[in-house]
Amino acid sequence: MERLKCTVSYDGSDFAGFQVQPDHRTVQGVVEKALYNMHKGKSIRIQASGRTDTGVHAVGQVIHFDSPLEIPERNWKQALNTLLPDDVRIRKVEKKTEEFHARYSVKEKEYHYFVSNEEDPDVFRREYVYHEPRKLDFERMQEACKYLEGTHDFTSFSSAKSSVKGTKIRTLYHVSCHQTGSNIEFVFRGSGFLYNMVRIMMSVLLDVGKGKRNPKDIIDLLASKNRQQIGKTLAPQGLYLWRVFYEENGSEK
Amino acid sequence: MERLKCTVSYDGSDFAGFQVQPDHRTVQGVVEKALYNMHKGKSIRIQASGRTDTGVHAVGQVIHFDSPLEIPERNWKQALNTLLPDDVRIRKVEKKTEEFHARYSVKEKEYHYFVSNEEDPDVFRREYVYHEPRKLDFERMQEACKYLEGTHDFTSFSSAKSSVKGTKIRTLYHVSCHQTGSNIEFVFRGSGFLYNMVRIMMSVLLDVGKGKRNPKDIIDLLASKNRQQIGKTLAPQGLYLWRVFYEENGSEK
Repeated sequence: MERLKCTVSYDGSDFAGFQVQPDHRTVQGVVEKALYNMHKGKSIRIQASGRTDTGVHAVGQVIHFDSPLEIPERNWKQALNTLLPDDVRIRKVEKKTEEFHARYSVKEKEYHYFVSNEEDPDVFRREYVYHEPRKLDFERMQEACKYLEGTHDFTSFSSAKSSVKGTKIRTLYHVSCHQTGSNIEFVFRGSGFLYNMVRIMMSVLLDVGKGKRNPKDIIDLLASKNRQQIGKTLAPQGLYLWRVFYEENGSEK
Repeated sequence: MERLKCTVSYDGSDFAGFQVQPDHRTVQGVVEKALYNMHKGKSIRIQASGRTDTGVHAVGQVIHFDSPLEIPERNWKQALNTLLPDDVRIRKVEKKTEEFHARYSVKEKEYHYFVSNEEDPDVFRREYVYHEPRKLDFERMQEACKYLEGTHDFTSFSSAKSSVKGTKIRTLYHVSCHQTGSNIEFVFRGSGFLYNMVRIMMSVLLDVGKGKRNPKDIIDLLASKNRQQIGKTLAPQGLYLWRVFYEENGSEK
């Protein structure tokens, strides 16, 4: 048996999220189906760095699986891409030892969130960016990003539906936003993320940009440990699982 | 009755082209349905600058229709967008006299075609650009573009299925290509275009870029007046009806 690590891009628009569910088209479902066909009817279960929700995209999701097939590393990528639908693409396949686990070996994750701050929505990007017609104050959002960095209890920024039983303390190493014309890209890199955490942080950051909150409100929101104080989770289509970093070598794109 | 001119963007991915057809989702179908609802059950027929095929996009398609409703010009856009699906957006509505006709008053049209010249396809742009993994020679394609400009009989560059009975002589005022990183944008502006003409010209231009043809072959292809000499029509997803120009004021975006 060989352990294969795959870096995967997918367009989340037509998937009911990553995790396999009966009667729904999921990323795990289509990847496991491709593997099933490649293994001539033998089921191969994949492990991912984590799930993504309906409509959320991935540029660099990471999965692993074990295969009895003896295929050179360089041929795996094409073999899988030939069997996958065109909204899922394998970017890279690497042979690993059994030490490697797509979920348990994760060191850091990076998410990006894209906002189009124009009056009219762009019909070609409606599934790929969040459209906010109200003019956002970029400097205020930049300031707010800095209050999210560091080690905090993120209870206020996690879904009430979160199944995490243990601590909600996480460390964000880097939070920032960058403006190019009317497009704003937010970057979040951290040790781990709670359920819906990026989309809830984004909701607060846009409130700051609209002038409905002050950047320093983030400090109080973190301290309150109360999800109720924050508005609704922002839409999924602007969110991308960008990159997963592993112990082994610190940087895996 | 008032004549309304609308500039319309649409994502062609989920449409069986512009023109209404039974049992298919078409741009004309959804726009006429929105108008039907707005006019409380009265059918309103729209006229467009021309059709677009399945999968072809529009940034600035132009349509017109006549309406008995008395609505201020500035309110039409929002009223229509509220009733339309989010892959069709009205960008602009203008009141016109009966002299204006979306099809018969056309002076020039502009199409753009986008090519991604990277090894791997971009999963997020698979419906919006044509992916060509073989390295294209940009300078050769630029040279070839110039041979398409001018007044020519474009029989070789029109579909055998073309229903045009009259002359196939058309004038292209401007043909060019522009490179930004691995993206190449082609621009075609002319007095009129035959069925599939841009996609057939694109097929030849990519052959030139791949070194399968010389730029000057265009001269012979035009002279031959034979569609059979050219390979298959290029895929629709890279093609955008960009802009339609009218007599009235020369430039309408």
